[in-house]
Amino acid sequence: MKPAKLQAFTPLFYLVWSDDLLTQKEFSTLKEFINSLNVLSQEEKEYLLSKVDISNPPSRNELTQWKLDIEKSIQDKSSIKSIFDIAEALSGSDLDLTPIESDFIKLENDLGILGEEALQNFKTKADSFTANSHTTSNFDIQKITEFLDGKEAPIIKKVKSVISRPEFAYETSTDINVFRQTVYNWCKILADENLGNMAYPKEYGGGGNVEDYFAIMETLSYHDLSLVIKFGVQFGLWGMSVQSLGTEKHYAKYLKDIGSLKLPGCFAMTETHHGSNVKGLETTATYNHSDQTFTIHTPNKNAQKEYIGNAAVHGQMATVFAKLVIDDHDYGVNAFVVPLRDTDGNTVKGVTIGDCGHKMGLNGVDNGTISFDNVVIPKENMLDRFASVNDKGEFESPIPSDNRRFFTMLGTLVGGRIGIPRSALAAAKSGLTIAIRYSDQRRQFGPEGGSEVPILNYRMHQRRLLPHLAKTYAVHFALQYLTKRFLNKKEEEMQEIEALAAGMKSYSTWSTRDILQECREACGGKGYLSENRIDALKNDTEIYTTFEGDNTVLMQLVAKNRLSEFRKSFGEMGSLGIINYVYENAKTAITEKNPIATRRTDDEHLLDKEFHLQAFVHREKTILASAARRIKKLVDGGLEAYDAFNVVQHQMIDVAQAYLERIVLEQFQEAVKTIEDENSKQILTKLYQLYALSQIEKNKAWYLEDGYMEAVKTKAVRKIVNQLCWDIRPDAVALVNAFDIPESCLAAPIAV
Amino acid sequence: MKPAKLQAFTPLFYLVWSDDLLTQKEFSTLKEFINSLNVLSQEEKEYLLSKVDISNPPSRNELTQWKLDIEKSIQDKSSIKSIFDIAEALSGSDLDLTPIESDFIKLENDLGILGEEALQNFKTKADSFTANSHTTSNFDIQKITEFLDGKEAPIIKKVKSVISRPEFAYETSTDINVFRQTVYNWCKILADENLGNMAYPKEYGGGGNVEDYFAIMETLSYHDLSLVIKFGVQFGLWGMSVQSLGTEKHYAKYLKDIGSLKLPGCFAMTETHHGSNVKGLETTATYNHSDQTFTIHTPNKNAQKEYIGNAAVHGQMATVFAKLVIDDHDYGVNAFVVPLRDTDGNTVKGVTIGDCGHKMGLNGVDNGTISFDNVVIPKENMLDRFASVNDKGEFESPIPSDNRRFFTMLGTLVGGRIGIPRSALAAAKSGLTIAIRYSDQRRQFGPEGGSEVPILNYRMHQRRLLPHLAKTYAVHFALQYLTKRFLNKKEEEMQEIEALAAGMKSYSTWSTRDILQECREACGGKGYLSENRIDALKNDTEIYTTFEGDNTVLMQLVAKNRLSEFRKSFGEMGSLGIINYVYENAKTAITEKNPIATRRTDDEHLLDKEFHLQAFVHREKTILASAARRIKKLVDGGLEAYDAFNVVQHQMIDVAQAYLERIVLEQFQEAVKTIEDENSKQILTKLYQLYALSQIEKNKAWYLEDGYMEAVKTKAVRKIVNQLCWDIRPDAVALVNAFDIPESCLAAPIAV
Ligand SMILES: Cc1cc2nc3c(=O)[nH]c(=O)nc-3n(C[C@H](O)[C@H](O)[C@H](O)COP(=O)(O)OP(=O)(O)OC[C@H]3O[C@@H](n4cnc5c(N)ncnc54)[C@H](O)[C@@H]3O)c2cc1C
Ligand SMILES: Cc1cc2nc3c(=O)[nH]c(=O)nc-3n(C[C@H](O)[C@H](O)[C@H](O)COP(=O)(O)OP(=O)(O)OC[C@H]3O[C@@H](n4cnc5c(N)ncnc54)[C@H](O)[C@@H]3O)c2cc1C
Repeated sequence: MKPAKLQAFTPLFYLVWSDDLLTQKEFSTLKEFINSLNVLSQEEKEYLLSKVDISNPPSRNELTQWKLDIEKSIQDKSSIKSIFDIAEALSGSDLDLTPIESDFIKLENDLGILGEEALQNFKTKADSFTANSHTTSNFDIQKITEFLDGKEAPIIKKVKSVISRPEFAYETSTDINVFRQTVYNWCKILADENLGNMAYPKEYGGGGNVEDYFAIMETLSYHDLSLVIKFGVQFGLWGMSVQSLGTEKHYAKYLKDIGSLKLPGCFAMTETHHGSNVKGLETTATYNHSDQTFTIHTPNKNAQKEYIGNAAVHGQMATVFAKLVIDDHDYGVNAFVVPLRDTDGNTVKGVTIGDCGHKMGLNGVDNGTISFDNVVIPKENMLDRFASVNDKGEFESPIPSDNRRFFTMLGTLVGGRIGIPRSALAAAKSGLTIAIRYSDQRRQFGPEGGSEVPILNYRMHQRRLLPHLAKTYAVHFALQYLTKRFLNKKEEEMQEIEALAAGMKSYSTWSTRDILQECREACGGKGYLSENRIDALKNDTEIYTTFEGDNTVLMQLVAKNRLSEFRKSFGEMGSLGIINYVYENAKTAITEKNPIATRRTDDEHLLDKEFHLQAFVHREKTILASAARRIKKLVDGGLEAYDAFNVVQHQMIDVAQAYLERIVLEQFQEAVKTIEDENSKQILTKLYQLYALSQIEKNKAWYLEDGYMEAVKTKAVRKIVNQLCWDIRPDAVALVNAFDIPESCLAAPIAV
Repeated sequence: MKPAKLQAFTPLFYLVWSDDLLTQKEFSTLKEFINSLNVLSQEEKEYLLSKVDISNPPSRNELTQWKLDIEKSIQDKSSIKSIFDIAEALSGSDLDLTPIESDFIKLENDLGILGEEALQNFKTKADSFTANSHTTSNFDIQKITEFLDGKEAPIIKKVKSVISRPEFAYETSTDINVFRQTVYNWCKILADENLGNMAYPKEYGGGGNVEDYFAIMETLSYHDLSLVIKFGVQFGLWGMSVQSLGTEKHYAKYLKDIGSLKLPGCFAMTETHHGSNVKGLETTATYNHSDQTFTIHTPNKNAQKEYIGNAAVHGQMATVFAKLVIDDHDYGVNAFVVPLRDTDGNTVKGVTIGDCGHKMGLNGVDNGTISFDNVVIPKENMLDRFASVNDKGEFESPIPSDNRRFFTMLGTLVGGRIGIPRSALAAAKSGLTIAIRYSDQRRQFGPEGGSEVPILNYRMHQRRLLPHLAKTYAVHFALQYLTKRFLNKKEEEMQEIEALAAGMKSYSTWSTRDILQECREACGGKGYLSENRIDALKNDTEIYTTFEGDNTVLMQLVAKNRLSEFRKSFGEMGSLGIINYVYENAKTAITEKNPIATRRTDDEHLLDKEFHLQAFVHREKTILASAARRIKKLVDGGLEAYDAFNVVQHQMIDVAQAYLERIVLEQFQEAVKTIEDENSKQILTKLYQLYALSQIEKNKAWYLEDGYMEAVKTKAVRKIVNQLCWDIRPDAVALVNAFDIPESCLAAPIAV
């Protein structure tokens, strides 16, 4: 630019021509501005106007030169804060800009230029806060691993070593026949290693260790999930149904062969028309006293067994759930062992098997349909722990109600509701390990002039992954707790534990669904390639929310259990119970709801575990009492109970959700309290806080509606969640490494 | 039960033995109760105690008899409201129960028996509210279809007829080579039908109709989505890049052959190390003036082109984005047509192609990697609409800034950001059609004694699907609007339209992701079978949130555009602008925020479209102004702008989200206003209300924090959302049928 004094306008011109946002309208604004500058001569104005002529752009070289000039002028001048400052620096003493300062700044505003932001264009090597965050390790990874594994460490180690063998290389064929065979072969290896029969009594060749069995299920889930499900169908569903519903004679006859996979079998409960509502099963088992047999029969097409794992190819026998009929009398659903195929794989007469074909995932598992056309089985094939037919051909059972007997039978199968959520947990750990490691490596964008930044440094990306990481730790501890409760169960705790298992099954599998979805997106295009395994993890676990009990249905069971506990505990006070309860609760809530507490936003308070617990408990209690009252009101108002429950169905899910969140919170608190190593405690505390506060944030509408928190407080929660994410970020990779997943299982090239 | 007077206790005994909730503890409670009854003799007590002896349960027949007795006693007696009432009815005049009434009721409470609920067990054929809801049609489906299709009806009809032909039977092979070939063949048929070249100028053999092109993309999406993407890569990305970035000579040379699929090609922008941040591409195109050629080169492994559609198998040429280098000078990213294969499919010398292999979905598309080892192309292969090398070998461009030129080039490709969300919309429609039709047929559970109920009658199920249905209609109208804006764009609107397209691309694809997830779960096990197509729909659209611009990145662009518009519009008021704006906004808000408005819960108000619009606009404005202020504060406080944007990244997404929601709301309002048929207007109004209110419900934490609504109001919103779901349920099937998806495309056996 010839006239030196006009240098002052260089930054404006540069921005106009380089900015990709300005339009013709802005060009006119600029022209008006130039015309209005009385400090300039007409000639000077014309020169400037020629520089903003849309039909006569500067050459690329001129533009580059402008940029260099500007950069030179601001080098090391930290006082420069706006475009006007640059203008001054450039014009030096040639032009007094003071008279036009306000016009100049107005122009900046009119053009929508944020001075400080535009300035970034000219700083050659921006030193950025965002760019500087990086992975460090502030704790001993192994200590956390040991804490997570606990006394299960030896069996976990054994399983990991088996699935890391070369034979366990992932199957890459998309042919489901090939895949099914591979998975079968893997199961055989596991059986040979005595991993399948771990939960069966020692007398029948088993390991006699249920706790280890669960740890095996979870650890196997670092590998292909078809393997885990096939394994679970064979040794869990099929084997455990024999063990839980049968008696000695069945154990002696079957358990050893089931445990060695010599006798592959199925668990055949679901029918086409009855999935969630298994009480309605229609398959019949008709007793014939003359020859002491049962005839198993599928009365209509929709009563065929459906989705049955191990049915389409490998199963030789099945535990079939069917209505027992004696002398035209229906004795409710009972369980029978029914042969499907001979050892050569030929289907038994009267049995017709279909193939469910290709599925969204788990294609290594051979799910099929089964129909029975008057298949006759000997009397001893009835699994007769809870009901039997006596020598006179009469029905006998210690549990007279068909309904209650059936639910007692189902109750003994609750183990499946522990295996599945633990498998889901492992899948979430795999997904997070892949996504977090990749996000720490993957760079995209960066400060002007600086190099690109790991995407994990972006706040949004942290928000997308780190609360999920915290939740995964939380679920880990809660599932440990569930397992412990189950292993030490007393008769009178069974209903509570069943509800807890149903609830944690839903909580964990839904959590995994969300986590894997986020992991896929967080990895961008790489997350879509099957080689990076988020595909398989997501699609295989997709059905976890449905099988072993549909989550939405299970959550209603949990809520009903909570309601009935609630009613019982207030029964003693008579019908005033609820009212008193609500009043009592309101009293405690009042102390927590005093204007200071509802508005406290200091870190000390927000990070305090007492505050968290109170908030979770308050929510749980209030939602429960409110659902109870609402149902009562509806029923009192004349609605059928069935309809009343439908009206509040949405609230019922909240009842269960709030209960589970409180349990999970408590178990995370307990874990933090228990861990001894100081550095580990520190990082787990932060993770715990992130879990607690991101749950509160998720539920903040409820807290605001309830008046338990005011807006200042919920806003402060959001801020502190952001801050915790930022603080945890440097440890994120170490935290997923602490899951200690075998590299050969992770296998994703992006996670190396 | 022998002593007639003791009949009164039958209902209690029945409940105890049949209930699957009572435990030992409750048995003791019952025993205590019996012992405490002074009206009974010792013998009578003992008789009763024998009936609650856990080691001596009643026989199954006895239990059945009890039930029959009870049922008989309450038949047609509507006055019976509690277990105590039954007791009275049963005991008749044999025993005066009045003295023990309160004890009896206390016992019911202690046992946690809700009288009315327990009563249901005995009503043989419950007439239920829930059970009675069913599909009816309150409007003429075809009228809605016509309204949705508008003037695109003829081309939509044509496409539907083509994809319903037998040749378009879905490919069932899991072999990706077979699948890729099938998809290629389908594309060929579409090209032969002159559907591929629809958007190209008539002079070059095209249809000259961009609007129809978009309708084709959307309608094809009822079929296999690999087909749509392959189609989009060939005719959209590859063809349109030539048309948008090239000049006459390129049109003449390529467009006809691209449109007929004689010349399959690629759009090669993304590199391994540069996906979202394409400004950083590293491939070079070095100009050699001596022989008037460019040398295309991949400088390192991570600069290879990656994920490129059509590359792995079929592509013969590609539009390659590369940095133009002349005399060691870098002129920024430009586009070049580069040959990949000869017509026999042999790779050109210097070109190395890899295969991305199996993906989560879209396996009918052959994505691959491409590297160039000094591949020489003639000078005329530069797509030179925005930049060129002149005869002297000098760089020339009407847009001097490399940055700005690149974004201008990208801007011309915005069409892709319309095709993808419209394709996503169609996939959502397919998923909802399948899930809603199935939910109307599928029965599970029911009132005691009644038959099972369609799952769509469950409130929770309605909640899971119907707001998504409303949103899908909403997105339909918003994408029509986007298309219209794009087709009639004026130069000065381009930035706004680009932002709108980026935003709607994110909004629609995320919506589809959520919808298909819910559809899968809502269909239970059936949703997992590939034959029901939710598998393919979900996995194919999974990447829509990433390609054509990652959603999270796009949302930030949208937010930046909003911020810069915001600054411009307040520039004229100087730096006081924002303050004034906030003040003005606060003033209007005050009228809306008066204690009456923030608490109004009457239906008239909640259903009022003015209320909705004000609420959406208020949210949009407030979030935008608050983000602007926050950034300014951070930057004023000394943070680099890059860091400041990172700190508020989460809020930036909200800025974009609130903007999009307002746009979508407005367009739905507009559509309801436009439709003439009265019945159609009525049902669309309800759907509109459901969209508006479920968005408000989703954002209720924000409204509460802001003080725009109080708890009474947000709670009323929840209630009315439930009610709208219930009201819309009978029309739900008709509303998905109005999408008029060819049955052969839906194909899901559960959706017949
Ligand atoms: C891959 C796979 C493997 C399987 N393996 C086996 C096996 O080995 N053995 C076996 O016996 N079974 C097996 N199953 C069956 C599985 O247990 C059932 O799919 C599951 O119980 C759900 O039943 P459903 O599919 O019939 O869903 P439905 O019960 O039809 O549910 C459909 C939808 O309706 C909703 N719904 C239902 N009732 C209500 C209500 N009252 N209120 C609100 N919403 C409601 C549910 O939430 C769900 O979203 C398998 C299934 C699959 C897919
Ligand atoms: C099936 C498929 C087909 C494709 N077809 C083509 C094609 O034909 N031609 C072509 O050129 N390309 C194609 N692509 C590439 C596609 O356009 C890119 O995948 C997409 O642009 C995203 O880039 P990326 O995968 O590198 O993700 P990245 O940019 O690495 O993003 C990864 C994650 O980081 C996040 N992130 C990135 N930057 C930021 C930030 N600043 N702040 C916060 N978060 C951030 C993102 O949200 C994302 O979650 C295809 C990809 C796929 C998977």
